[in-house]
Parts: sequence; structure tokens; C-alpha cells
Amino acid sequence: MTTELPLTDATRLRRKPERGDRHRDTIHAVIDEALVAHVGFVVDDQPFVIPMTYGRDGDVLYLHGSVANRTLRALDTSPRVCATFTLLDGLVLARSHFHHSMNYRSVVLLGTARRVRDAARCRRALGCIVDHVVPGRTSEARPPSDAELRQTAVVELPIEEASAKVRTGGPVEEPADLELDVWAGVIPVRAVFGRPEADGQGLDAATPPSVTRYARP
Amino acid sequence: MTTELPLTDATRLRRKPERGDRHRDTIHAVIDEALVAHVGFVVDDQPFVIPMTYGRDGDVLYLHGSVANRTLRALDTSPRVCATFTLLDGLVLARSHFHHSMNYRSVVLLGTARRVRDAARCRRALGCIVDHVVPGRTSEARPPSDAELRQTAVVELPIEEASAKVRTGGPVEEPADLELDVWAGVIPVRAVFGRPEADGQGLDAATPPSVTRYARP
Repeated sequence: MTTELPLTDATRLRRKPERGDRHRDTIHAVIDEALVAHVGFVVDDQPFVIPMTYGRDGDVLYLHGSVANRTLRALDTSPRVCATFTLLDGLVLARSHFHHSMNYRSVVLLGTARRVRDAARCRRALGCIVDHVVPGRTSEARPPSDAELRQTAVVELPIEEASAKVRTGGPVEEPADLELDVWAGVIPVRAVFGRPEADGQGLDAATPPSVTRYARP
Repeated sequence: MTTELPLTDATRLRRKPERGDRHRDTIHAVIDEALVAHVGFVVDDQPFVIPMTYGRDGDVLYLHGSVANRTLRALDTSPRVCATFTLLDGLVLARSHFHHSMNYRSVVLLGTARRVRDAARCRRALGCIVDHVVPGRTSEARPPSDAELRQTAVVELPIEEASAKVRTGGPVEEPADLELDVWAGVIPVRAVFGRPEADGQGLDAATPPSVTRYARP
């Protein structure tokens, strides 16, 4: 059994509600597979959307950046954010322009960001972020020094007010359009990870399985 | 020679300004290659970020949706938006947690959205959006009927206040870390388009080159 996050006015889907999903497992799966969050915040009535890496620890999302990072500093005074995660799965070609669409899995997460000040929790959060991008990487590379930790700001966002939206399948068609001599269907899209390229600096270290067998969950 | 968009307070990069680029050609190239814009807007001080398809016509970005679409309706009263386009090119693995990074090309576009009311311009904008996703598709599929046009809202956003940010190359390393026996380098990432899947409805139409040779610009 998966649990559902609460339905709020902001996360209720007005359009095509059948594509909506507030199950915790669906939401976590999209967040875990994606690599980039598009984080929206507001400064003087102007919205900004910045691509950021992130990590998830249970029901908490962690963002990080330099202590000089404008986005994280803005969140100190304007902490309302929206973090959106999008996995594009296919281009949906219909017989009409109108019914063209995309297959995707996305999550919209709303909330109030809060700076993490505790050094131990910062370390844990930064480990989450590294392991989110490359599972197991924290045990391979050098952990942050105290000086590096002081240069890094960490922000947490509870994963409480969120909804997933998923579209799958072929095009919807008007019955009359099925008489048209027009190809229709789906062009699948996926992220592919290429052959790892060693940087050629330092020692000739072996390539670990986390890299040679890299894959998203 | 390419032209640069004006530097504004909002598009000035404070962090790593050497990664910034306001050349029109760079900005257009990222917008043209990406498939999804993450569009941020504000309702009652809450930012929302919604993934949307789009089209570009010169220095104008077009968004569209159902006339019932909450995002497009919100823009009628809160027209300040930020549309962000991100192409992920690689995961950058350093010998330290701290220097992990990503290679990417992104554009942040700020502006004021405006509904397009003129039917001829709406038709043109919708054609731009279809051809953005699948170049040449407008000439293959059925154009919108008047009824379909009435169900569709189009919004335009001038591409004037924007900046691109690009990271390439391997990890930055602390000199002392080069003595560590840790693999470091780049895992390349790219979007791959799979074998087209016909929907099996209607006539057995030939697969056009726009589909069989599908590629981003």
C-alpha cells in the first residue's frame, strides 16, 4: 500500500485530473529518477526558475549551493518555492496538429524552504545529493572538509504538498482523422549515459562499478 | 557576429560569470534544442513551475494550452514569468564530494507574457510549436479547425531579457586531491530518440522522414 499526500487547492489538477497521482511512491520515484529540479522562487514579484541538483532523504528534499549563491540567499527572505521534476518519455504525434502531445512523468512540489544550519545535518544532506546523482559515490570520493562545508549552504524542503502527473500511450484522435493518410504514434525519448571519460589528471585510478554500470533507479 | 541581449540586474550572473553568455545565437540554440520549458509564475505569492512545450519565432517565444488551462489563465493576471530551458550534457565526478558538478547548457528567460488574440497569429504560433517538437510536422498533419483554435490559448513572451549558462569539461580539483586513488571524469548524458511506434489506428500510413530521421537541431 502506498500513502497519498494530502490534496490541497494548489496541487489539485483542474485539467485532465485522471493524469494526476498523489501517491508517495509515484512522487518519490520521479524525484529519484530525475537529475535536475527546476526550482522556482520569487524576488520582488519576479519569478525565477533555476535548474539545481538535489537529494532526497525520506520526505525531505535537499538543495545546496555556494553560500554566495543568489538563489539560496533569496530563499532566506522569500522561502516559498516550487520544485518541479520532469522526465520526458516520448513525443506523441497525432494525425492533427491539435492532438500532438508528450508522454512524461512530472512532479510539482510546493513548500517553504528552510536553511539547514546544523553541521552534521548539512554533511548528511550533501551526501544525499552526491549519492542521488551517482549512487554509492560518497563512499568513493573524499568527504567535505570543514572549510568546504562552511562554503556550502544547504536548504531543506519537506515533500508534503506535491502531485505527480503522468501521460502514457499513443495519440488521442478524432474519429474522422483516422481516415487521413498521416503517420501517427510515439517517438520514445530517454536519457542515455555514455562511456565514462576519465579526466586524465592524477593517478590512473580504476573505474568503479558506480560509473561503469551507471543507471538511474 | 552574434548580438548580445542587454545585461540587466536580473540576468547578471553573480556566481561564475565566466559561464554566462548573452549572445542571441547561444540563447536561441539552447531554446531550439530543448523540448520542455519550465515556466515559473506567481499566484498569491506562491511560485509555480510547470513544464510546457513551446515554439520560437525569431525573438518571440510561444506557449499554448487549453483555454481552461490554469497556468495560462494565471498569466492573464500575473503575467511576469520566467521560462527556463535546460540541456544536461554530463555528470562531472570529482575526487572530492565538493567538486562534483554537471555539464549543461541552460537559458533563463524573464519577461511579461501576453495573450495572443488574433486568430491568424494564433495559427502561426501553434504551427511554430508543432514544428519545434517535430520539424516539418505541420505540413504532414491536419491543421487546427476553427473549433480547435477556439479551445486553445496562446501566450507570447519576448526573448529580450535572457541569459545562457554553459558548463563543459572535466572536474575542477584541489591539487592535493590528485594524489587520491579515486576515479574522476565525466559521464556523458544525452537524450536519445528511439524507434518510432505507430499507433496502429486508422490507415497504414508511411512513416515520414521527419519521424524516421528524427533529431534535434
